[in-house]
Amino acid sequence: MSTIDTNFQQTGESIRLLARSGKFHTPTITSAPGFVQANLIVLPSRLAPDFRQFCARNSVPCPLLAETPIGIFDRLKSHIPGLTGQQIAGDLDLRSDFPRYMIYDNGRLTKSHVANIEREWTGDHVGFLIGCSFSFDAALTKAGLPPAHTLWGRNVPMYRTRVPLCPAGVFKNSTYIVSMRPYRRKDIEKVRDITRPYLITHGEPIDWGWDAVERLGISNIATPEYGDAPVAPDGTELVQGFGEGDETLEPVFFGCGVTPQEAIQRAGLEGRVFAHAPGHMIVLDIKDSDITRDN
Amino acid sequence: MSTIDTNFQQTGESIRLLARSGKFHTPTITSAPGFVQANLIVLPSRLAPDFRQFCARNSVPCPLLAETPIGIFDRLKSHIPGLTGQQIAGDLDLRSDFPRYMIYDNGRLTKSHVANIEREWTGDHVGFLIGCSFSFDAALTKAGLPPAHTLWGRNVPMYRTRVPLCPAGVFKNSTYIVSMRPYRRKDIEKVRDITRPYLITHGEPIDWGWDAVERLGISNIATPEYGDAPVAPDGTELVQGFGEGDETLEPVFFGCGVTPQEAIQRAGLEGRVFAHAPGHMIVLDIKDSDITRDN
Repeated sequence: MSTIDTNFQQTGESIRLLARSGKFHTPTITSAPGFVQANLIVLPSRLAPDFRQFCARNSVPCPLLAETPIGIFDRLKSHIPGLTGQQIAGDLDLRSDFPRYMIYDNGRLTKSHVANIEREWTGDHVGFLIGCSFSFDAALTKAGLPPAHTLWGRNVPMYRTRVPLCPAGVFKNSTYIVSMRPYRRKDIEKVRDITRPYLITHGEPIDWGWDAVERLGISNIATPEYGDAPVAPDGTELVQGFGEGDETLEPVFFGCGVTPQEAIQRAGLEGRVFAHAPGHMIVLDIKDSDITRDN
Repeated sequence: MSTIDTNFQQTGESIRLLARSGKFHTPTITSAPGFVQANLIVLPSRLAPDFRQFCARNSVPCPLLAETPIGIFDRLKSHIPGLTGQQIAGDLDLRSDFPRYMIYDNGRLTKSHVANIEREWTGDHVGFLIGCSFSFDAALTKAGLPPAHTLWGRNVPMYRTRVPLCPAGVFKNSTYIVSMRPYRRKDIEKVRDITRPYLITHGEPIDWGWDAVERLGISNIATPEYGDAPVAPDGTELVQGFGEGDETLEPVFFGCGVTPQEAIQRAGLEGRVFAHAPGHMIVLDIKDSDITRDN
């Protein structure tokens, strides 16, 4: 009997079922490679129209993949042309299929990294799934450009920026959150080309280079607001001055689905809101090839 | 015989035909109220995929309404769900239906405010129509909140900002251009509500208040980069300190379809690109009610 590569057998559904049963509670960085992952926002129904508009106006950080009918946690309405909610994720429970959750009350984080939100979900909540940049990490790896954090079993570093989002109704005073992957200067155009078709999972980088740290208003590259501290591809601390000329290692910044969690805090929304714990995503039934789009 | 209000009889088509025959060459601020107006970008076909992506990633300043097949100037392919190109504008000639045009060579403005681009258009050009904020000026006026510039027959003031756009292929290093309409502080939420449904013509403001001038990186409110200098509703110069408390007159900034013209210059594109002269729009056959969208 041949040996079984359990990692190879992972599917979106298998990860969801493990999370649902409480057996999976870590970041999903390398889970079920090639399957699309997603961020979560769950809102009281009266806030849903403004949030939908907020996503439409800020589609790079907040690409809306699907939402639930009011109060429903096991069925999706698709926002991806050509795909149904059932195709995006069939066997589904948004209350427990993420490895970890965050709970916000009146815009403030009140519970962090809880296992599920089964008791908290009410008949008035609407769930939204938002694209995640993990979706193109497999494509980068396949092209010989694995993101440094994936080589060392770390969560991706995520930073608060000063770049404003377009307001929509109650969602105002928000700024981009970005994820970061370091690359050599000579590889950055290739990274842009590979990630460009992933339009609904943040797409190509929004900025790059050491100059971008100041341009985006990131306070300290060594201390991200979410995720793990950044490392170079060799596992050492990421610092400026590694390599020369085209070999210079530079930070590359992407839109990040943690952005709406910040937006919820900035808006100081009344009521109870749920989200996933950053890096702890839901894994869907669709694959990267289902969502990439050439123009 | 009753008198005829010629202004009332204006339609999108009548303005297009006047422009086409060389009889109309002014800004279209108050032309055919209620009919949707649009900005123009015409690119060599090899740049079209990147531009389409650029619009998708920056849909507030660059909402893509329609484009032409390669080399075609009299037929549109619609990007508005539920509307055909023929419905958007039937009798059409993108080479002459705008009152005035700009010509860029290799990313530099080489001709300004020309009457038409009939001789310049080639079999390789693709035309793009982008939403225009003039579309909601009629709705604001109807609600008793006429934009100040419309009261005094002036072009809307437009400003360069430091707020970065999301890059897409060759389109990088760009920032938002914004149009500005001053309103009393107490009316700003009403202005946001009225403009919010106009998602594909820039929608609600991106920022507001005197603090926003610095936040957006606008160098001087008195000297816009495009259009006319701003005026208060009473026709006097717009300055800080007009009114008190809720009556304070404040600048309100909207996404602006001149943004892609700046993007073309920033990208330093090789080849010949055409655009409309800022404020000198094409007027379409569709009306505002055809494009507003409630969430």
